[in-house]
Amino acid sequence: MPQLIVVSAPSGAGKTTICRRLVEKVGGLAYSVSYTTRKPRPKEKEGVDYFFCDRPRFDAMIEAGEFLEWAEVFGNYYGTSRQWVFKQLENGLDVLVDIEIAGARQIKNTFPEAVFIFIVPPTFEELVHRLELRGTEGESELRQRLEQARTEIEAHKMYDYLVINDDLDRAVQDLVTVVQAERLRLPKSDQFWRRFF
Amino acid sequence: MPQLIVVSAPSGAGKTTICRRLVEKVGGLAYSVSYTTRKPRPKEKEGVDYFFCDRPRFDAMIEAGEFLEWAEVFGNYYGTSRQWVFKQLENGLDVLVDIEIAGARQIKNTFPEAVFIFIVPPTFEELVHRLELRGTEGESELRQRLEQARTEIEAHKMYDYLVINDDLDRAVQDLVTVVQAERLRLPKSDQFWRRFF
Repeated sequence: MPQLIVVSAPSGAGKTTICRRLVEKVGGLAYSVSYTTRKPRPKEKEGVDYFFCDRPRFDAMIEAGEFLEWAEVFGNYYGTSRQWVFKQLENGLDVLVDIEIAGARQIKNTFPEAVFIFIVPPTFEELVHRLELRGTEGESELRQRLEQARTEIEAHKMYDYLVINDDLDRAVQDLVTVVQAERLRLPKSDQFWRRFF
Repeated sequence: MPQLIVVSAPSGAGKTTICRRLVEKVGGLAYSVSYTTRKPRPKEKEGVDYFFCDRPRFDAMIEAGEFLEWAEVFGNYYGTSRQWVFKQLENGLDVLVDIEIAGARQIKNTFPEAVFIFIVPPTFEELVHRLELRGTEGESELRQRLEQARTEIEAHKMYDYLVINDDLDRAVQDLVTVVQAERLRLPKSDQFWRRFF
């Protein structure tokens, strides 16, 4: 049975890079594209990185129950299309959702059989270092992000797996292993067993 | 945290061969050696294949609570030493226990956090074929084994993972994947997280 795989991380843990490489390495895994009200950054492409939309349209989608989860992050809205996800699952594909913890918590409530993976940098200091290196944030936004990261890491308990990103190749391989192992999970349905006899 | 990994299969599914190759391929995994009252077959070695012992000694061990699980199978007794298993876990090794379903059920009751893996041949007919090829059983023992296999397969629901042995290399690799993924499970203790901050 196809699975919904939810990956979260504190900001700066390298989540998106790892997820992209995971999808390249594992067949049959569809990478969910979020809707967002955030302005595109340079190089970001519509329908590849995000579906970019304005706030009224996003609000209308919330109203219509079109999101599997949605969240506000630093004043911008992000959401995962329920219809898109279920279409992939119906087509037999696993779906990878790369989202903030607030969104993961919503999925945990409505779709507890999903697989929850948490990526962390090897130490919190390393996280600070990476955020500073990135240098796209001002001082106060950095402090806000760090505070959020601390809160997020404390929210880890709903996750099934922990991947430590101290080496990118190793972290990608760890996610490959988790996805492959989850494909060996005993089917909850009796379908397999009926076929067996 | 080291894990107890329980592998069961209907007779003739190739369990022991797969488990031996698994232990060769994965480091840090101790293969539990069972006690048995069964007579050694040719080539079987004391302390490698089994600890062979007589019935009075086995009964004394049951009485003393020395078994993590034990079961009677076709008139012989098999048991897993609790002390041996916990010693390996304390030393930081995962432990692989290769046992009948009756024994697995006892472990499920007393040690539910163990990982339960079920190996099956691709079809039931294939199972019959393999048992016939083995040719070490008489007609009535074969029928008895098949009936037991059917019952065992129906007992699958307590298992976490299903590995289909249609190709030996693939089946071994599937078990490697499961063991590696289980090592990425979020630690139940807070130890890791205390270290993180």
